[in-house]
Amino acid sequence: MVRYRCLGFLTDYGLEDGFVAVCHGVVTSIVPDARIVDVSHLIPAYDLRRGAMVLARAAPYLEPAVLVAVVDPEVGGDRRPVAVATKSSVLVGPDNGLLLPAADALGGVGRAVVLDRAELFLEPVSATFHGRDVFAPVAAHLLAGVALADVGTAIDPDGLVQLSEPRVFIRLDGLEAEVVDVDHFGNLQLAAEWRDLDTDLGEPLDVDGHRAVTGRHFASVAPGDLVVYADSDERVAVAVNGGNAARRLEVTRGATVRISGGRTPDR
Amino acid sequence: MVRYRCLGFLTDYGLEDGFVAVCHGVVTSIVPDARIVDVSHLIPAYDLRRGAMVLARAAPYLEPAVLVAVVDPEVGGDRRPVAVATKSSVLVGPDNGLLLPAADALGGVGRAVVLDRAELFLEPVSATFHGRDVFAPVAAHLLAGVALADVGTAIDPDGLVQLSEPRVFIRLDGLEAEVVDVDHFGNLQLAAEWRDLDTDLGEPLDVDGHRAVTGRHFASVAPGDLVVYADSDERVAVAVNGGNAARRLEVTRGATVRISGGRTPDR
Amino acid sequence: MVRYRCLGFLTDYGLEDGFVAVCHGVVTSIVPDARIVDVSHLIPAYDLRRGAMVLARAAPYLEPAVLVAVVDPEVGGDRRPVAVATKSSVLVGPDNGLLLPAADALGGVGRAVVLDRAELFLEPVSATFHGRDVFAPVAAHLLAGVALADVGTAIDPDGLVQLSEPRVFIRLDGLEAEVVDVDHFGNLQLAAEWRDLDTDLGEPLDVDGHRAVTGRHFASVAPGDLVVYADSDERVAVAVNGGNAARRLEVTRGATVRISGGRTPDR
Repeated sequence: MVRYRCLGFLTDYGLEDGFVAVCHGVVTSIVPDARIVDVSHLIPAYDLRRGAMVLARAAPYLEPAVLVAVVDPEVGGDRRPVAVATKSSVLVGPDNGLLLPAADALGGVGRAVVLDRAELFLEPVSATFHGRDVFAPVAAHLLAGVALADVGTAIDPDGLVQLSEPRVFIRLDGLEAEVVDVDHFGNLQLAAEWRDLDTDLGEPLDVDGHRAVTGRHFASVAPGDLVVYADSDERVAVAVNGGNAARRLEVTRGATVRISGGRTPDR
Repeated sequence: MVRYRCLGFLTDYGLEDGFVAVCHGVVTSIVPDARIVDVSHLIPAYDLRRGAMVLARAAPYLEPAVLVAVVDPEVGGDRRPVAVATKSSVLVGPDNGLLLPAADALGGVGRAVVLDRAELFLEPVSATFHGRDVFAPVAAHLLAGVALADVGTAIDPDGLVQLSEPRVFIRLDGLEAEVVDVDHFGNLQLAAEWRDLDTDLGEPLDVDGHRAVTGRHFASVAPGDLVVYADSDERVAVAVNGGNAARRLEVTRGATVRISGGRTPDR
Repeated sequence: MVRYRCLGFLTDYGLEDGFVAVCHGVVTSIVPDARIVDVSHLIPAYDLRRGAMVLARAAPYLEPAVLVAVVDPEVGGDRRPVAVATKSSVLVGPDNGLLLPAADALGGVGRAVVLDRAELFLEPVSATFHGRDVFAPVAAHLLAGVALADVGTAIDPDGLVQLSEPRVFIRLDGLEAEVVDVDHFGNLQLAAEWRDLDTDLGEPLDVDGHRAVTGRHFASVAPGDLVVYADSDERVAVAVNGGNAARRLEVTRGATVRISGGRTPDR
């Protein structure tokens, strides 16, 4: 009976130091044939919001899975180590908001436990490397079939720490939305969903003072032009065909972008 | 009956955003025990020539394989999604020249199909993430044993888009050749094959005005010296022992480098 | 009878060129179901000391393993290709000091051989890519169960090349120690072990002229403050809570850091 397809693993550890391999070693010492999918280890150091977003984007394509995420600025401090169950999957990591967007993407939080079974940890537990000593071994035991109730004590899911919601303002002549992601290509993903964008705004659009048009994809516009499109997560996104929208608009994640109709709609 | 050893995967997606993991998830949802070899996901954005070269270099060491490559500036536009068979392997990706050098390295193109079996895609197909929605699932089905003819409609292989050939000029006193690759160490690989280099040129050689000698390997010359050698692909290559030839010669990929005899040969 | 859990693989090849995938292909051509753990391929080019440290840190979490490490500035020159056995594991790579700290971390060197069985190599052996042609295939054969004595000729382990020891000076009022590692977060690991640090120095400490306190973890101090702590390898380490200690102290690996008591101890 295979319960989970894989162990998905996300951290801000980087790829140069061997920390990720150490955790792979811990997991495979418990589950020798584990399939580990490295979601990303290039989350900027301590960047909870970015980690949460990347995990939430990947989670639906890995479920049913054990998802371990470690972006943990308060490691060794008071924040709780937790495991959070969804209908298909279980998420393991610090209780600092990192896990909940992925849980939402998987249908919402069911039960939750605080990880307090020291016999599952790698002893002695270090003060600074809980990925190795706490989260990886607990996740491996879950992957091996140990029940959620056997890795910790039940806690109230409503008490889990949440990240604040990103900003979206819908206006008569368009919208203002927080840039929640800038990907490798410089494409911007906004907090707004595609259905938030009034399709009667008229073309061209104005994006922070730059001319843009709506399109289905990059190639809908001339090379070098700005395009506003529904990205593969059905969010409002902004790209430059063959170029880098973040550099063009001089924005980074967390900034607010304003999209408005370039002229008064005729109707 | 195992037909392919692995699924080799190359993109310009980068490693930070989780896009690669999403595709791994799609592949393993179809072939749970797939061996996926990540060839490179650090191809510079939209750099077809670089992607084609890296894929072609790795392909002979992975065959028989399903090789999926996605460097796809025209995603969502008119370019065709294709699969191209070689004697041992099958290549999957956009028809923009990316796949053909690897096909050549595997003995040449046999049959080719345009991917038009929507029932194999991840629906709804997004406009911008065909790696996830088209190429990964089709590749996984091929890995699972689905025949080429069952993933698309046959097309004329001679109609596949080709990249232009890199420049090589053989001269009486040496050669001029395009730099087709600059690797992680700053070593230059030229378009010329080693057998193109006249071994009677006389030493030392002149490489773009810098003194160099031929050698079997970096350690053939003093630390800091330039060496011209046959690299592990049997191409003419230029390195600095313990240093970075690209920085020394101030060239990048696409530049032309001239190698000539430093003095008149005696015979 | 499974002798080794995995093949651990460390190089300075980088991730962009496909060199790592080529080696994966070579290994899996010999052992189709090999578990390969990529320890790091982002060792700075030719940086033996960094490679040795990262390998030594990961080795105890991967054993019993075949560990292949290639940071090899003298590839093709006179340095010997070797395999070195420890009680549980075997290390494969150039004889330039890279392997021995990991062997120490695994309990010390047992037997050693020089790799001279050409029938195990990928022929023809290139002059510059011994990772592909020598080390990967030999390691794969060891993983497959070939005995150490069958991959080479015995050599005297005492003749293996060693890296120099990093500097540590214990003083009455503290210590001076070489920075042996700067990780992804900018945390400094010193050559000194935690037990080398006199716990009666008195607080606050002085670290190269900056105020610091000892703590169990980052969260032991206020955000932005310096903390001296025992890291997860039980070495003296220096961090900034939520920040980057290497930038704060303006040091890089190889520098010497001085830690002293900030005031005269009362007792």
